[in-house]
Amino acid sequence: MAGTDSSRVPVTGGPAVVLVAPQMGENIGACARAMLNFGLTELRLVRPRDGWPNEQARAMASRADSVLDEARVFDSTADAVADRHLVLATTARPRELVKAVLTPRQAAALSRSAVAAGERVAWLFGAERAGLDNDDVARAHAIVQVPANPAFASINLAQAVLLMGYEWFQAVPEPRGNDGLGVPATAAEMESFHGRLEAALDAAGFLKPPEKRPHMVRNIRSLFQRLRPTEQELRTLHGIVSALLRR
Amino acid sequence: MAGTDSSRVPVTGGPAVVLVAPQMGENIGACARAMLNFGLTELRLVRPRDGWPNEQARAMASRADSVLDEARVFDSTADAVADRHLVLATTARPRELVKAVLTPRQAAALSRSAVAAGERVAWLFGAERAGLDNDDVARAHAIVQVPANPAFASINLAQAVLLMGYEWFQAVPEPRGNDGLGVPATAAEMESFHGRLEAALDAAGFLKPPEKRPHMVRNIRSLFQRLRPTEQELRTLHGIVSALLRR
Repeated sequence: MAGTDSSRVPVTGGPAVVLVAPQMGENIGACARAMLNFGLTELRLVRPRDGWPNEQARAMASRADSVLDEARVFDSTADAVADRHLVLATTARPRELVKAVLTPRQAAALSRSAVAAGERVAWLFGAERAGLDNDDVARAHAIVQVPANPAFASINLAQAVLLMGYEWFQAVPEPRGNDGLGVPATAAEMESFHGRLEAALDAAGFLKPPEKRPHMVRNIRSLFQRLRPTEQELRTLHGIVSALLRR
Repeated sequence: MAGTDSSRVPVTGGPAVVLVAPQMGENIGACARAMLNFGLTELRLVRPRDGWPNEQARAMASRADSVLDEARVFDSTADAVADRHLVLATTARPRELVKAVLTPRQAAALSRSAVAAGERVAWLFGAERAGLDNDDVARAHAIVQVPANPAFASINLAQAVLLMGYEWFQAVPEPRGNDGLGVPATAAEMESFHGRLEAALDAAGFLKPPEKRPHMVRNIRSLFQRLRPTEQELRTLHGIVSALLRR
């Protein structure tokens, strides 16, 4: 799929809304409306259940169908976020992953700051009931959770997009402590590093037994995502791997 | 209808969500869900189109049906807000009325402050397409508008409730400059004052010609709502009317 060729991505400035395995076309249409309410126009769909384009989505989107017209479909979450520098996942935090948890307000401010610094941002939203799987969450730099009544906290897909858009519309970029340190690596560059690292670890027999491999891989990925290395730092990490492999 | 007997109103602390002439039961159910997401439980319905109770509302409300069970139905907006001290209307501002316009965030902070001071609060939401009529807006102390893309600003009913609830959940009371000045009059007390004033003005031939009367009445009501007099001040206003009538 496309997605790794960032030169082909239209730059709208706002975060891309990435719906992973969305089920109902109506919900995709409702998300498009919620996006356009707050000036967001870049919709990405990962394996929409009922294919694409989708008539139910269009019927629900009403005048927001321009967002659907420009939507891009991807085979994997990795492809959908490949050109992104900052990836935030709206979901509950899996117990096994160490992740910062942000409110939508904090996430919006962070996203504005990233965009102001020339970075590209993606927000991940999971399927209606299942949410994001742990592998997708591991790709994110942080988790976003809506503060809500703990006894009744379930928010639907379009509502989650609405709250994020609402906060985005009002957010102002915050000064960042790490300005001048360089642009962080994109998700595609990180993916390439992880692929190489995991191949090396497989060869070394580190990712065993096989039934524990997915869990170990997720934790390693989550760790380096949290690090959010710049391109220069990622080159250093590659160098470390190369050096260790030469031993 | 009930509503003026404030002793019968269960005190939950949070604002009452008042839906004026809601049409689709599904939307009422979705509002109940959005309310419970953020700990709001007091739902009031003014002339629901399809009657009450409503099966579609229940089907949509899912586990939020406790909110529907406790919902109260009123014949008029005046009855629905009679026991309230602070009334906020979520709508566009009618050009003819002079009203403060708040964001949901400001409205939530104001509502928290009012509740912290022992006042009762109502938020008014209009019907799906028509919104609130000008007479209902005139009853409000201020307008709430969601900051949104001016080219695509329409937010549906349950989404508006969601955004207000979301802000309410996170809001903290702000110190108020007028603490110690006394509790403001309730909507019922204001209604009584307005009824008396308008009868006097009718008798004096002030509210003419008849086709202009609704507009004039709205403006007068809106003016005194903005004043938000305390009970003591309202007694003073009554005294002024009495004195003028004696002349």
